[in-house]
Amino acid sequence: MNKQYVVGIDIGGTNTVFGIVDARGNVLAKSAVKTATHQDINLYVNEIYEEFIKLVEDFGGIESIKGIGVGAPNGNYYTGNIEFAPNLIWKGLIPLSKLISEKFGVPTALTNDANAATIGEMAYGAARGMKNFILITLGTGVGSGIVIDGKLVYGHDGFAGELGHTCSVRNNGRQCGCGRTGCLETYTSANGVARTAREFLETRKDDSLLRNIPLESISSKDVYEAAVQDDKLALEIFEFTGKILGEALSDFVAFSAPEAIILFGGLAKAGDFILNPVVKHMEKNMLVLWKNKVKLLFSELKEADAAILGASALAWEL
Amino acid sequence: MNKQYVVGIDIGGTNTVFGIVDARGNVLAKSAVKTATHQDINLYVNEIYEEFIKLVEDFGGIESIKGIGVGAPNGNYYTGNIEFAPNLIWKGLIPLSKLISEKFGVPTALTNDANAATIGEMAYGAARGMKNFILITLGTGVGSGIVIDGKLVYGHDGFAGELGHTCSVRNNGRQCGCGRTGCLETYTSANGVARTAREFLETRKDDSLLRNIPLESISSKDVYEAAVQDDKLALEIFEFTGKILGEALSDFVAFSAPEAIILFGGLAKAGDFILNPVVKHMEKNMLVLWKNKVKLLFSELKEADAAILGASALAWEL
Repeated sequence: MNKQYVVGIDIGGTNTVFGIVDARGNVLAKSAVKTATHQDINLYVNEIYEEFIKLVEDFGGIESIKGIGVGAPNGNYYTGNIEFAPNLIWKGLIPLSKLISEKFGVPTALTNDANAATIGEMAYGAARGMKNFILITLGTGVGSGIVIDGKLVYGHDGFAGELGHTCSVRNNGRQCGCGRTGCLETYTSANGVARTAREFLETRKDDSLLRNIPLESISSKDVYEAAVQDDKLALEIFEFTGKILGEALSDFVAFSAPEAIILFGGLAKAGDFILNPVVKHMEKNMLVLWKNKVKLLFSELKEADAAILGASALAWEL
Repeated sequence: MNKQYVVGIDIGGTNTVFGIVDARGNVLAKSAVKTATHQDINLYVNEIYEEFIKLVEDFGGIESIKGIGVGAPNGNYYTGNIEFAPNLIWKGLIPLSKLISEKFGVPTALTNDANAATIGEMAYGAARGMKNFILITLGTGVGSGIVIDGKLVYGHDGFAGELGHTCSVRNNGRQCGCGRTGCLETYTSANGVARTAREFLETRKDDSLLRNIPLESISSKDVYEAAVQDDKLALEIFEFTGKILGEALSDFVAFSAPEAIILFGGLAKAGDFILNPVVKHMEKNMLVLWKNKVKLLFSELKEADAAILGASALAWEL
């Protein structure tokens, strides 16, 4: 039997989704389990395995699977462990790659979710054919994956590419979940945009559609919907967010001189509302050498499948 | 004849130094010419060639040379060109690698001076055996070289690693030679330290040994010599400089997760005066993941030979 498919498993705090993927990046079948049901990691792996066995029956059974790629919070590619993930129920070091590989009898690799997305973009998305690019995930937090010479950068310890935790505001910056202040993530994640909205609404008096929403429940999606209706305050929130992100991107370019930067995740759906200010401020702050030379692109992975595709792409390299 | 030696050529704005280097990093013989004598680049290459032929006679002649490495301002490894170097008399694109290779009949590679220093450190210095590190040159300007998985990062266009031009002070930062403001280089280069000294002396009233020197002629060396004598203002200048550099380094770590950061060049000679504040502020700003894990080292290349060694190391890879 030809080992023609790979499996992608994406572990989120709430759901674990997984699917069978072919070489062209088609998700042939997928399923999901709850991540936090089993305190015992072995029972969790068993549950995925049993769901998966049903799924793979129509595709030649497990013999058709070349490898399994896993995207997980705090996933370390070098060790195959999930290491001290604050948002998962399993604490400490979890040797997940080993457990899955043993249960499934298939080679398995693991990395964090942003790195998985980056490899997915290179295999099936906007970065096909690129050797040097940076992907920024703009979701609940801000993550990143860096590709140099066609290879994902893992660094000395496996944790390279934490660009969401570079400092955007040095003094009096916002408190970050990492314990420090002023991190890029606190301004340009979906949560960061919601924080900006609340700050603007509290400190200013101008009208806005956003004033019809209870302050504490405002989300980045609300800001987007207000911007679609040409709400001036909502547009200013995107300008503010785009300025901070654009400034950061111009510094990232000075590091690895990428061909492109790719924006991925929820906030990227805001389209030109976020793209235009990011491009403007990135170019304004760019070293002359790179002005108007670095492409800024959105992810081309189909949103519903992006997490599975990203994780699965890791398996082709096994 | 065994091709057992390499040649390093380091091109500065004033002097061009070159030497014959063995595999252990010994500079067996060296010489120099003035960089700016010949408007015609061919005459410049001829002059180096004639000096070099005399030098190499005692070492088996040119047949013993495996390759030539050149470190030059704005040197592009991919093209072998010097590209629009503001401080050299040759303007535009200069195909120096090709000219030298043709004149000498020896394979030649070229990169910028900071990258050359980085490769030198990896071949003969503090980074021997390291696969992931960042070198920062603290000279007239601030340059850098980044090594990932044992390879120097050139990026999409050959110009990666311009960390001296990442932004340290976003608003009201110092004017930089690159046309922008707030670049790391404007604070932590030798010139940056001298600027800080002048600023402190002009805006403060406290005593300092530095007040015995005409304001316009103060150099980073003067600040160092005052610090040696326990001059409080001079020590504060190093604290200020080290804070900005340490903050920047903690962000660089988030990019490539290096095993070590190596400080190279004039300012690194200030020893603990600069190292202590850099370490303090780097650790203070470091993401928890990397706290107390990334080594901060000084270059181990012998200073008088460092430029030649760095350039020569490039030739081993030919």
